[in-house]
Amino acid sequence: VGLAIECHADEISATENRIEHLERELQLQSSELQQLKQELRLETSIAKIDDGSIRYDRGLILTPGDGSNTPFSLKVNGWFQFRHHDFNSHVESWTDNAGITHPVENRNAFDIERARLVLSGHVLDERLTYFTQIDGDTDGGHQLDFFDYYWAWKFDDSFSIQVGKRKVSASRQWLLGARRTRLIDRPMATDFFRPDRTVGIWAVGDLPGNAYYELMVGNGYRTANLPETSTDDRLTFAGTSYLDPLGDYGNTLDDAKDRDSLLVRVGHSFVYSPTSEATGGSPLPETNFIRLTDGTRLTDTGALAPGVTVSDVDIYFYSIDGAFKYKGWSFDAELYLLWLEQLKGDAALPMTDLMQHGFYVEGGRFLIPQKLDANARYSEIDGFYGRGREIAAGLNYYPLSNPYLRLSFDVTRVIDSPLQNTSSDILVGDDGLLFRTQVQAEF
Amino acid sequence: VGLAIECHADEISATENRIEHLERELQLQSSELQQLKQELRLETSIAKIDDGSIRYDRGLILTPGDGSNTPFSLKVNGWFQFRHHDFNSHVESWTDNAGITHPVENRNAFDIERARLVLSGHVLDERLTYFTQIDGDTDGGHQLDFFDYYWAWKFDDSFSIQVGKRKVSASRQWLLGARRTRLIDRPMATDFFRPDRTVGIWAVGDLPGNAYYELMVGNGYRTANLPETSTDDRLTFAGTSYLDPLGDYGNTLDDAKDRDSLLVRVGHSFVYSPTSEATGGSPLPETNFIRLTDGTRLTDTGALAPGVTVSDVDIYFYSIDGAFKYKGWSFDAELYLLWLEQLKGDAALPMTDLMQHGFYVEGGRFLIPQKLDANARYSEIDGFYGRGREIAAGLNYYPLSNPYLRLSFDVTRVIDSPLQNTSSDILVGDDGLLFRTQVQAEF
Amino acid sequence: VGLAIECHADEISATENRIEHLERELQLQSSELQQLKQELRLETSIAKIDDGSIRYDRGLILTPGDGSNTPFSLKVNGWFQFRHHDFNSHVESWTDNAGITHPVENRNAFDIERARLVLSGHVLDERLTYFTQIDGDTDGGHQLDFFDYYWAWKFDDSFSIQVGKRKVSASRQWLLGARRTRLIDRPMATDFFRPDRTVGIWAVGDLPGNAYYELMVGNGYRTANLPETSTDDRLTFAGTSYLDPLGDYGNTLDDAKDRDSLLVRVGHSFVYSPTSEATGGSPLPETNFIRLTDGTRLTDTGALAPGVTVSDVDIYFYSIDGAFKYKGWSFDAELYLLWLEQLKGDAALPMTDLMQHGFYVEGGRFLIPQKLDANARYSEIDGFYGRGREIAAGLNYYPLSNPYLRLSFDVTRVIDSPLQNTSSDILVGDDGLLFRTQVQAEF
Repeated sequence: VGLAIECHADEISATENRIEHLERELQLQSSELQQLKQELRLETSIAKIDDGSIRYDRGLILTPGDGSNTPFSLKVNGWFQFRHHDFNSHVESWTDNAGITHPVENRNAFDIERARLVLSGHVLDERLTYFTQIDGDTDGGHQLDFFDYYWAWKFDDSFSIQVGKRKVSASRQWLLGARRTRLIDRPMATDFFRPDRTVGIWAVGDLPGNAYYELMVGNGYRTANLPETSTDDRLTFAGTSYLDPLGDYGNTLDDAKDRDSLLVRVGHSFVYSPTSEATGGSPLPETNFIRLTDGTRLTDTGALAPGVTVSDVDIYFYSIDGAFKYKGWSFDAELYLLWLEQLKGDAALPMTDLMQHGFYVEGGRFLIPQKLDANARYSEIDGFYGRGREIAAGLNYYPLSNPYLRLSFDVTRVIDSPLQNTSSDILVGDDGLLFRTQVQAEF
Repeated sequence: VGLAIECHADEISATENRIEHLERELQLQSSELQQLKQELRLETSIAKIDDGSIRYDRGLILTPGDGSNTPFSLKVNGWFQFRHHDFNSHVESWTDNAGITHPVENRNAFDIERARLVLSGHVLDERLTYFTQIDGDTDGGHQLDFFDYYWAWKFDDSFSIQVGKRKVSASRQWLLGARRTRLIDRPMATDFFRPDRTVGIWAVGDLPGNAYYELMVGNGYRTANLPETSTDDRLTFAGTSYLDPLGDYGNTLDDAKDRDSLLVRVGHSFVYSPTSEATGGSPLPETNFIRLTDGTRLTDTGALAPGVTVSDVDIYFYSIDGAFKYKGWSFDAELYLLWLEQLKGDAALPMTDLMQHGFYVEGGRFLIPQKLDANARYSEIDGFYGRGREIAAGLNYYPLSNPYLRLSFDVTRVIDSPLQNTSSDILVGDDGLLFRTQVQAEF
Repeated sequence: VGLAIECHADEISATENRIEHLERELQLQSSELQQLKQELRLETSIAKIDDGSIRYDRGLILTPGDGSNTPFSLKVNGWFQFRHHDFNSHVESWTDNAGITHPVENRNAFDIERARLVLSGHVLDERLTYFTQIDGDTDGGHQLDFFDYYWAWKFDDSFSIQVGKRKVSASRQWLLGARRTRLIDRPMATDFFRPDRTVGIWAVGDLPGNAYYELMVGNGYRTANLPETSTDDRLTFAGTSYLDPLGDYGNTLDDAKDRDSLLVRVGHSFVYSPTSEATGGSPLPETNFIRLTDGTRLTDTGALAPGVTVSDVDIYFYSIDGAFKYKGWSFDAELYLLWLEQLKGDAALPMTDLMQHGFYVEGGRFLIPQKLDANARYSEIDGFYGRGREIAAGLNYYPLSNPYLRLSFDVTRVIDSPLQNTSSDILVGDDGLLFRTQVQAEF
C-alpha cells in the first residue's frame, strides 16, 4: 500500500506539474489574446477613418470621407464628338427674299462638334445641387464657355427650383441630350424652330403616372451667350410636359435592349417670347436668329418689304411630340408651329403676323442588339416664303456594345435649307448631298 | 484499500485524460492564436498603405497618399451668383460733355453675375503655391477666362512673392471678395474709382500687431484681360495696408456672430499708373475706362474740349478706409481721391490735370443672428463735371445659418450715374430705381 | 492508509477543481478566439473594399476603386509661364513690300505666357484614351480655349489613331513641348516656318530601332482656332519621323544628367497644304499668317505686286533636324524649306511660286548639374524679299534641382524680324535688344 501510495504521490505530483504548466500556458495565451484584442480594436478604429472614395459610375464620382460634416458630392464627366463632313452642293448660290444672292460652297472638313466637361453634385444640403457644363467646340473657335450653369433646390420629386443657365423648356427633340439623338444631329426642322439656352428660373418635377413637367421664365428665346445689354426688358415664358402611359420610356429614343413590351411617350411644349426694339428702332440681336422659310433673316433690311427693317416681334411656339419603341424598333416625331406676331418695322409692313410650321418623322431598328442600328428620317419646314426638306439615312455602330462609344455615318439629301446651323453643318441655302462620319465618346 | 486504490487509479486515469485533452486544446488554441496574429500583422500592413484622401472643408480637398514623395495639394471650389434686376428709369436720356445724347432704358433681366471655378494648392515644395480662378458670367457672354492665375513662393508669414494675374493692390472694398460684401454689389463710388486686375508681381505679408501689407508692380490700372499689344511700356505701382488695433477683424464686414468686444480696422491704399499714347497720338484701350464725373469717357473726342481727343494721362489714386463691428452692428467707409495728371491730347486742352473724388458709408445689423441682416448705404462721386449719388437699403437672408448660401434683396436710388458697370447693373446715365434680387451659393 | 487516502482524496479533489477551472478558462478563451477570428474576417472584408486612390506622380492621378468595373483613369496637370519682357528698339519703323510704314515701339510688360490645365486618361477600355489641354494666356486676353482635345485608340505601340485637335505633325522643335525647349521660347526661324494646331486624324507609333512616326490629315496649316467657316474644302497632309541610333534620346534637349554615352536624334518632316480662295476671290483667314521674309503679310494688297491681292496658295514644307547630347553638353538644329506654289491673285502676279528658307542652331552646357545651364542660339530666315536674324544667349536656373520649376533669363539681338509672334514677344519689324525674364512652374 505504501508503494501504491508512493506511486500515486508521484503520479499526483506529475499531474500537478502538468496542470501547473497548463495554467501558465493558459495565462500566457490569455494575455496574448488580450493584446491581440487591443491591436484589433486599434486597427479597427484606424480602418474606420473614412478617407473618402473615388468611383467610376458613368462619370468619376468623388465622395468626401466621414470626417467632413458638410454634405458634398462631385461627379466629373467629359464627352467628345468628332466629325468629318463633306457637302456636295447641287447649286452655286441662293437668293434671299430681299433679292440678295449668296454663294453656296462645297465643304470638306473635320471638326470637333462637341467638346464638353461636366461638373455636377450637391453641397451644404442634399437638396442643394449644382450642374456646370463647359463647351469648347470648333464652331466657337474652341473657346470655352459655360453651356449650362445652374443651381437647384429640390423640395421633392414633384418640385425642384433651378436658377441659372440651361435650355429653354420646349421641344422634346431639343431637350434630348445630343448623346441620345438618333442620327447624332437633330432634324433640320427641329434646329429651325427650336429655342436655345437662356438665363432664368425653372420649376421641374414628376407628375402622377409616369409624367414630367418643366415651367420656365427667362431672358429670351435664343439668348444663350448674348450679354445682357443685347437683351430687352421683356421676359420669355415656356413649358413642356410628357406622359409615358405604358411605363417609363427611359432616356433613349432607340430600343437597344430589344424589349418585349411596347413603350410610348406623348407630350407637348409652348413658348411665349415677346421682344421689343432697341431705342432708335433697330432690332436687337435677340431676334437675329429668326429666318423666313426661304432662309431670309427676318431682321435683314428688305426681308418682308423693300427697304424696311423689322424691329419688333412676339414669338409664339407650340409643338406636339410622340414616340414608341418595341422589339428593337423605334419611332419618334414632332410637329412645330411658330407664330411671329405684332410685327413692326421702321416703315409699313405687308403683314402684322406670320405663321411658319414644320415637322420631322424618324425611325430605326437595331440590326445587331446593342451593337448596330439603322435609321431614317424625313423633316420639312414650310411657310409663306418657301419650303425646305431633308431626307436622311444612317447607321450607328457601338464597338463596345454600350452607348458610350459610337461611330456614326449618315447621308442626307438637303433641299432648299432655310436653316443656318454650324452644329449640324447644314447652312442656309444648302441644296445637295451631305455625308457625315462621326465619333462620339464619353467618360 | 485495494478498492480505494483502484478507485483512485481510475480517478487519476480520468484526470490524466482530461489533462491530456486540455493540453491538446491549448496546443490547438496556441496555433490558432499564432495564425490570427500573423493575419492581423498582414492586415495592418495592408491598411497602412495610404491611398490619399478626399475631404470637404469649405472646398473639396484632394490629398495624395504617402506613396507620393512630392508635396502636393489641390482644393476645388465653385461659386455662383444669380440675379434678377429691374431698373425703372426716371429719365429718357443723358447728354455727355461732348454734347452727345445717349438713351437710358428700363431693364428687366436675369443674369449669372458670377460663375466661378477655383483650383488652388501647393506643389513640389510647401512654399510653392498656385491659385487659379476661372469666371464665365453673363456679362462676358458666358465665355470662360482666367480671372486670377498666380503662383507664389512663401518665405514666411511676413513675406510672399506672387507672380501672375490678380487684383491691383488698392481699395479695401475692391480687395474684399464679392462673397463677403455687404449688399453683394459694391458701392457705386468704389466701382467708379477702383482699379481692376492686372499681370505683375506682388509682395504680400503680415506686419507686427495684426497688420497686413501688399505692394505691387504690374502692367496697368485696368488691364485685366487686355492683350499685351493694347498696353504701353510704362508700369503701374500700387500698395495697400491695414491695421486691426483691437484684434483680428476677420474676413467679413458684418458681425454675424454678435460679438461682445469692439473690432476695428483702418487702412489706406495708393496707385501710380502712368500711361502713354500709342504711336500716332491715339489713346490706348488701357485708358478707355476713365470717365468724367458726369459719365463722359475721358478718351472720347470732345470730352474735355470740342474736337480734341485725350491721348495721355497719369493716374494717381489714394484711399483711406475704416470699419468697426460690435454686438451685431457693423459699419465701414472708404474715401477715394483720383488725380488725372499730365493730360495731353491731339490739340490744346483747357487743363493739364483734373481731380475727382468720392466716398461711401455703409452699415448694418443682424436682426436674427447668422440668419437675417439689414443694411443701408450712401455713396457719392464728385468732381468738376458733375456729381453722381446712390442711396441703397437691403436685406440678406442665410437659410442654412451659414454664409455659404445667401438670398439678397436691395433697392437702390441711383442719381446721375457716371459709372458704366454691368457687374452691378448700374450703367452710365442711370437715374431711377434699381431692384436687385440675388442668390449666392458656393462649394 | 485511510488518512493517506483521505489526503489523496483531498489532493485529487483540489486537482479536479484546478482542471475544471482550466477547462472553463480554455472554453472561455476558445470562444474569445472565435469571436476575434470573426472580427478579423469582418475587418479584412471591410479593408478589402478598395475606395480608389489619389497619387501625385508628375500630375495628380485619380484611380477609381475596385467596385468600378469600367476601366478609367484621370490625371490632372497644370502649368504656368510668367514673363517680363523689355524690348529696346534700334529703329522707329519698318516698311513692308507694299510700301506701308509701320511703327516699331519699345515694350516693357509682364505677361502670363502660358496658363494651362491638362486632363488626360483612359475610359471604357485601356486602349481608349483622351487628352485635353486648356490654355488661357495673356496674348488671348486670358480667355480659355481647348488648345488640344483628342481621343485615341491604341492598337499597339506601333500604331495609334488620334482624332480631334492637336499640333500638325511637322518640325521637331515645334512638336517639342514648351516646358522642354532650351531657352523657353522657340527660335525665330521655327516660329516663322512652323505650322500650328489643326483638327484632323493622326496615326502615330514606334518604328523598329528607337524610331517614331506621325502621319496626319487635317483641316489646314494654321487653322488652330479658326471656326470652320473660315477654312476651305481642301485638306492638309503632314508627316514626321525620327531615329535615335544610339539609344532612346528622352524627351529633353539638354543633358541635365551629365551622361557618359553619346545620344543622337535625327529626323525630318513634311507638310502639303493646299488652300483655295473664298468665293469672290478674297483670301481666306487660313492663309493670313503667311509672311514674306521682310515681314509683309502675303495676303495684304500690294504684297507681291502693286494693287494685287493674293487669294490662292499651296504650301509645301520640308525640314531636317538633328541633335546630340554628351557629358552635360547638348546641341540641336533644324533646317526649314517652305515653297509657296500655285500663287494666284485678283490680277497678274510677277511670279507663280516663291521659296523661302531658314534654320536655327543652338547648344548649351550644364554648369552645375541639374541646377544651372547656359545656352546660345543663332537663327536665320532668308528669301527673295529679305533676311531676318536672331542671336541669343541665356541661363536656366532650377532651384529645386528638377525640371519642374525653372527661372530663365535671356538676351536676344533681333535683326529685321519678319515674324509676328506674341508668344515669344518678337513682333514684325523688330530690330533691337530683347530681354526676357521668366518663371515656369508645373504640377
